[in-house]
Amino acid sequence: MDFDTIPTTIPMLGTPGIPTPIQQWQKDHQRHFVSDDDQVVIDVHEKALARIFQAGEMPSVFELAGPREQIYFDPSKLKCALVTCGGLCPGLNGIIRSVVLELFYGYGVRNIYGIRYGLQGFIPRYGHGVVELTPAAVGDIIRKGGSFLGSSRGPQDVGEIVDCLERMNIRALFMVGGDGTLMAATRIADTILERGLKISVVGIPKTIDNDIYMVSRSFGFDTAVDVATQSIRAAHNEAKGYPNGIGLIKLMGRYSGFIAATAALAQQDVNFVLIPEVDFDMDGPDGFMETLERRMADKGHAVIVVAEGAGQRFFRDAEKRRDASGNIRLNDIGLFLKEAIVNHFKARKTDISIKYIDPSYMIRSLPANSNDHVFCSFLGRSAVHAAMAGKTKLLIGHWNNHFVHVPMAASAGKRKQVSPDGRLWQSVLGSTGQGMLRNI
Amino acid sequence: MDFDTIPTTIPMLGTPGIPTPIQQWQKDHQRHFVSDDDQVVIDVHEKALARIFQAGEMPSVFELAGPREQIYFDPSKLKCALVTCGGLCPGLNGIIRSVVLELFYGYGVRNIYGIRYGLQGFIPRYGHGVVELTPAAVGDIIRKGGSFLGSSRGPQDVGEIVDCLERMNIRALFMVGGDGTLMAATRIADTILERGLKISVVGIPKTIDNDIYMVSRSFGFDTAVDVATQSIRAAHNEAKGYPNGIGLIKLMGRYSGFIAATAALAQQDVNFVLIPEVDFDMDGPDGFMETLERRMADKGHAVIVVAEGAGQRFFRDAEKRRDASGNIRLNDIGLFLKEAIVNHFKARKTDISIKYIDPSYMIRSLPANSNDHVFCSFLGRSAVHAAMAGKTKLLIGHWNNHFVHVPMAASAGKRKQVSPDGRLWQSVLGSTGQGMLRNI
Amino acid sequence: MDFDTIPTTIPMLGTPGIPTPIQQWQKDHQRHFVSDDDQVVIDVHEKALARIFQAGEMPSVFELAGPREQIYFDPSKLKCALVTCGGLCPGLNGIIRSVVLELFYGYGVRNIYGIRYGLQGFIPRYGHGVVELTPAAVGDIIRKGGSFLGSSRGPQDVGEIVDCLERMNIRALFMVGGDGTLMAATRIADTILERGLKISVVGIPKTIDNDIYMVSRSFGFDTAVDVATQSIRAAHNEAKGYPNGIGLIKLMGRYSGFIAATAALAQQDVNFVLIPEVDFDMDGPDGFMETLERRMADKGHAVIVVAEGAGQRFFRDAEKRRDASGNIRLNDIGLFLKEAIVNHFKARKTDISIKYIDPSYMIRSLPANSNDHVFCSFLGRSAVHAAMAGKTKLLIGHWNNHFVHVPMAASAGKRKQVSPDGRLWQSVLGSTGQGMLRNI
Amino acid sequence: MDFDTIPTTIPMLGTPGIPTPIQQWQKDHQRHFVSDDDQVVIDVHEKALARIFQAGEMPSVFELAGPREQIYFDPSKLKCALVTCGGLCPGLNGIIRSVVLELFYGYGVRNIYGIRYGLQGFIPRYGHGVVELTPAAVGDIIRKGGSFLGSSRGPQDVGEIVDCLERMNIRALFMVGGDGTLMAATRIADTILERGLKISVVGIPKTIDNDIYMVSRSFGFDTAVDVATQSIRAAHNEAKGYPNGIGLIKLMGRYSGFIAATAALAQQDVNFVLIPEVDFDMDGPDGFMETLERRMADKGHAVIVVAEGAGQRFFRDAEKRRDASGNIRLNDIGLFLKEAIVNHFKARKTDISIKYIDPSYMIRSLPANSNDHVFCSFLGRSAVHAAMAGKTKLLIGHWNNHFVHVPMAASAGKRKQVSPDGRLWQSVLGSTGQGMLRNI
Repeated sequence: MDFDTIPTTIPMLGTPGIPTPIQQWQKDHQRHFVSDDDQVVIDVHEKALARIFQAGEMPSVFELAGPREQIYFDPSKLKCALVTCGGLCPGLNGIIRSVVLELFYGYGVRNIYGIRYGLQGFIPRYGHGVVELTPAAVGDIIRKGGSFLGSSRGPQDVGEIVDCLERMNIRALFMVGGDGTLMAATRIADTILERGLKISVVGIPKTIDNDIYMVSRSFGFDTAVDVATQSIRAAHNEAKGYPNGIGLIKLMGRYSGFIAATAALAQQDVNFVLIPEVDFDMDGPDGFMETLERRMADKGHAVIVVAEGAGQRFFRDAEKRRDASGNIRLNDIGLFLKEAIVNHFKARKTDISIKYIDPSYMIRSLPANSNDHVFCSFLGRSAVHAAMAGKTKLLIGHWNNHFVHVPMAASAGKRKQVSPDGRLWQSVLGSTGQGMLRNI
Repeated sequence: MDFDTIPTTIPMLGTPGIPTPIQQWQKDHQRHFVSDDDQVVIDVHEKALARIFQAGEMPSVFELAGPREQIYFDPSKLKCALVTCGGLCPGLNGIIRSVVLELFYGYGVRNIYGIRYGLQGFIPRYGHGVVELTPAAVGDIIRKGGSFLGSSRGPQDVGEIVDCLERMNIRALFMVGGDGTLMAATRIADTILERGLKISVVGIPKTIDNDIYMVSRSFGFDTAVDVATQSIRAAHNEAKGYPNGIGLIKLMGRYSGFIAATAALAQQDVNFVLIPEVDFDMDGPDGFMETLERRMADKGHAVIVVAEGAGQRFFRDAEKRRDASGNIRLNDIGLFLKEAIVNHFKARKTDISIKYIDPSYMIRSLPANSNDHVFCSFLGRSAVHAAMAGKTKLLIGHWNNHFVHVPMAASAGKRKQVSPDGRLWQSVLGSTGQGMLRNI
Repeated sequence: MDFDTIPTTIPMLGTPGIPTPIQQWQKDHQRHFVSDDDQVVIDVHEKALARIFQAGEMPSVFELAGPREQIYFDPSKLKCALVTCGGLCPGLNGIIRSVVLELFYGYGVRNIYGIRYGLQGFIPRYGHGVVELTPAAVGDIIRKGGSFLGSSRGPQDVGEIVDCLERMNIRALFMVGGDGTLMAATRIADTILERGLKISVVGIPKTIDNDIYMVSRSFGFDTAVDVATQSIRAAHNEAKGYPNGIGLIKLMGRYSGFIAATAALAQQDVNFVLIPEVDFDMDGPDGFMETLERRMADKGHAVIVVAEGAGQRFFRDAEKRRDASGNIRLNDIGLFLKEAIVNHFKARKTDISIKYIDPSYMIRSLPANSNDHVFCSFLGRSAVHAAMAGKTKLLIGHWNNHFVHVPMAASAGKRKQVSPDGRLWQSVLGSTGQGMLRNI
Repeated sequence: MDFDTIPTTIPMLGTPGIPTPIQQWQKDHQRHFVSDDDQVVIDVHEKALARIFQAGEMPSVFELAGPREQIYFDPSKLKCALVTCGGLCPGLNGIIRSVVLELFYGYGVRNIYGIRYGLQGFIPRYGHGVVELTPAAVGDIIRKGGSFLGSSRGPQDVGEIVDCLERMNIRALFMVGGDGTLMAATRIADTILERGLKISVVGIPKTIDNDIYMVSRSFGFDTAVDVATQSIRAAHNEAKGYPNGIGLIKLMGRYSGFIAATAALAQQDVNFVLIPEVDFDMDGPDGFMETLERRMADKGHAVIVVAEGAGQRFFRDAEKRRDASGNIRLNDIGLFLKEAIVNHFKARKTDISIKYIDPSYMIRSLPANSNDHVFCSFLGRSAVHAAMAGKTKLLIGHWNNHFVHVPMAASAGKRKQVSPDGRLWQSVLGSTGQGMLRNI
């Protein structure tokens, strides 16, 4: 990736001038407040850094997230809103809870509103109402999957959303959502600016597929891999349980195969992984079908994991449609493969026993695991610190093992993908031994 | 059920005349060997029993399972075989392990063979070979789902199977399988008899659907409900997570809705349960669609669990086919309902968000839970005791909280189903409040 | 057990004369209401039954639990209370929830009070207050362990408790608790009778140890075994992980070793199980220490499970004290064994690596598993049916696979224990091969 | 941390001159081999980097781990050994498996030996023998906790260990272990050098406490937190379940409180966390006991997590002893606190209900979770790449989200600890609100 062109400056609503009410915990330790010039380089490769510095330039950096000594908003007067948008993801309730706890206990903010059902919740004609958020209201929600506030898909009118913020007198808005939501957040922040309002908009990137650009890990992904692993284990048992057994698992991953690739490494019983980022041929001597046939002749069973976005070129363009959020509807590569495999071996007069597993929403709707709980706690608290400091148009990211401020402009409209040359995919190739699956 | 006509006598290969080598564990306690006239009544209702006894008749009974003081086979010379047939089920490896441990340590049997891939393993032309089973070989297999021996579907020639038993000099055969397997077991036992052989055939009933007749609980069912519950939880989160959210889960249950009904009770967030045993109407004022519509108008979300065998009358007979085992292929009620619901609300111009979850094989291929492990341990050991005593043509059942000997003739060809009048279904109706779903 | 002397009649507050509001669900099926003479025999052994009937006597029976066609209380006027007492147990929240749901939706009862912190909640000077219980209040509580209402140990004045019931105008009291609670329940019911009040007292037996007399299974036990199994797995890994490794696990079981014995069967890696019901010697050629020494010499590792109540004779009586509930304080057999083993092998100059695991409260404080959820749902609903019918001084039991009414007098003051001659312990002996551990 | 003085050069046994047999997977993609000058800066803060570069110096760096294009050893002749030392840790079997798979399939190495029971396995007089490691032998071991090879504590003679390596003709040694093991590894590598041998020694740092210096995450930690969270959940239920309930959990963490602090964040129901890194007073107005008393008066319950190494100053030095590995025996802070709390409230005549949970070895002996499985897979494969390239005296570390080569000299003898000023502890303070607990 070329990091030089990444915008890294975080817009400010104004100059923070209020001492933070966050307690100085340790009398014998200096409380570690974070300063805006605490920054980490984005590209940590020594050669790249040397080149930049020796050219007298400065490397691209991200601000560190964390509490600031001076804040912008007066907590006693601040009204905040929180909204979760798009598909469910393990950890949404952890985010909600930690934002509320940090606002309430850390800063003393007392007016925190939960917007119901995603962006719809801002639009009066849906009539969804708001939820008052207090520590008591969110105390137990992390035991549960889903979103305590509800969600919805699809865009809403940005003007109407900002009208609602004005009407409610909201000064800090926390938006949890994916690609589309973050683009909406950008437009909301721009409209706020145009209207001359002082409302902070902080995004917390959500994607079960782990495909947010410039964000090395997104919450819920670890839990998703846990559940995906279960389905692979089941498929492996089915494959080994019958003569010529094949287990075929379809996993989420519209444009990025992170879940498929990572779950395959967690289970290590997988023989083929197919992802959107790496093309493959169905037919021909090195194609998928003949490679599978050789594997079956050799070992008598096979486990195949396919990400939902893989192999889309096998469907005619005409069949593509868009869903409510404007996402392109994917044709079902899982069922396509299942049928292709059945037909292939039928033509060979070879009896096989194929079992198809599609865990679908189970991947994303179960409660977060411990690891994701901790991660969500840091994300939510970091988002609060950023908003209180008067920052806006930013995401809370995780980069080089630090929580950082990522300008929305740095991430919007791009997507992180599994690199065919990188560690993850190379490990998948090493673990599966599947080879290229291309006739080149 | 009319229990009077149930055959309850267990055939014997001969008179047990060898003292058991099973140790008398307690010097100060009499080892509790079980005698063949230790029998429990099948129908435990006092009124029924009084009627029978007062008429001078004897009630139907099952022999208690357990170790006999005299056994029929000489353990030092005995060769045994074990086979698992049909669909996978949590606990298969627990059965395998406990049969091997009891034969080896309890009786000192040293020749125990595992037949690979179900009934195919008896037929030379498949070339599957056998596995020698020792405590070391089966030591760790209970951590895993599936079958350590493999399985297969479909019938095989009974004569060839008995030929194989003769050739291998097997004198005790343990068959783990469902309906079809137990019918095959009956025919194998009959052919053995016709040929004048002395081979014990003991069945251990396996059915993920818990639908074996005269068997109150079958192994793996408890684990299946555990996993099914997860999928309901996910669907519930999806349903609550969106405006007008509907979660639809298809669960296993070809002819019996035990998994669907029990998992619905375990989760208690379910609003509709549809099972094969209870007919329902799709249309009309009291039919499913309008009841669902009223529920949505009232509560804004719904969770629906459907057993795969429910509502089959909505498909044309012509579409029914048979799979390799002769089972009728079921049309997909899950996808049918999903489409019907989408179309219904589209016609009403009501936006809904429906999420469909089909955990399919995940229900049956994961490792057994603790409860099923314990249960499998008792089943396997009971089967060994029965075979060693020279009994044949029987199943190991669980009835009135006792492990018992069920003659194959008592169970074969019938099926246990959820009774619409019984405790389970009445509780489902109480818990869901779904009502009749019939226009009568 | 001699069942002939068991009291089996359930006291009634009066004659039920109000038609039940419970809906008749199936138009084409007769709703299966249960009649008071639907009874199951307690002893299901055919020989025992024949003897009784042939002597012209009637066998001991339990009434079946379930909804009655006529009820005693007018639901619109009924005030109910629910209390959980003693130690925590997985499933308490499931009981609370199902009692509330059945009262509310099944019968239309609107005044349901939760008494806080066990029997203390009835006593004004503790100032605990009550909780109003509605379906919304209990909707999500089954995800959590512990008791939604809280609990406490120790007796309270029965007169004050009945005063409280009178003051609150409670007419049906559901008490969930163990041995001590059920004895208190008996005394409460007696005092109610003496005062000429019409208050139903229904007990739901709770014991993590599964040791309630005349109750074949108690809720939470299955979950407890699940967690106990985890600790055995860890101990097994520790034992196998080191030269001369020993894993020692102490499990709950004050007077009954059901958890220890059952968890040992679930895991099957256990070499010694020590329970209160079966005495053992520490020293001497057949005692525990020398048997363990032989095992270590032979296999190089050992896993030992000890129930907390085992081996109490090794402590001097003088050291026994009573806790707040009047239970005798047990000396710590786990630490005693650990020290004895360390000293024994030190004296033999044999290096060992012993790891001690005491999961303690983790066994009883985690949420119930699916199986226990279903079980609790039946228990809670059965308790409601019994109370609505005007029955009192009874427990909801599970016997011969039926939910039944057990008169408090039948169970109070006795305890179920692992029978040294029975199936469970004999299986443990078969699985561990531990032998007698006695020098006789 | 001052990173400038950290040694970062990895010793080489010689110049790699053999083309790697690792397949070039992608015909259309360049296989991403890693070069020794692919390095990442250790300190990623822009200000620090600018200062260094502007001074004309080079920042401290770590080599990236990964496959090299040229290797040092001829795989066809190479003999490798693998040993696991010290305490068990989730993921040991994942490491073993991935080392074996990468050696076997990636490089074609056929002679891989597992040393049994840690360093003891090198010493003939223990007679432990070795295990031949093949893909089949390690195929299923990741389902299990513990170490497939066994382990042991305590040092062994370094000369004897190197004698053994010479005798077995081992050229690459993989050592998985903690602090002590890595110091032994250093001395082994030095002795190898002194003897003029060409044996690569690669360490994989293991510590359930996550306290290896210069290693941001160690395997098994994530799983340990998962299990620790369970015990906190149980303690929380106990604390809320009784009037004045206190749940006290002791967790592993001899010198570093990472498990305690992280599990507290995962569960967020914890009110006090005590760790070795942060001193606290027991008595006095701001001390632990009076702060707890105020909390109890205010909220009526409390959950306390204590790391085993916390508060050691409350024990007399004389009581400290060393265990077999030379570790100082810690006095039991858990039992100390329990007694102190009981006595404190007894003196105040306040009834409390305190429940003590010590999950002890359960934390470290259970199987790894998915996340740790993936992590172990990368660690094991990285270790193999390093050894094949002829590198020695290094650890495989994880730093700034990259797998890197850490010279043993950089890490040995130091320890990572929770920084009282850092993100983790500040979040704990924010989440618990416990304050300083010091009278200053």
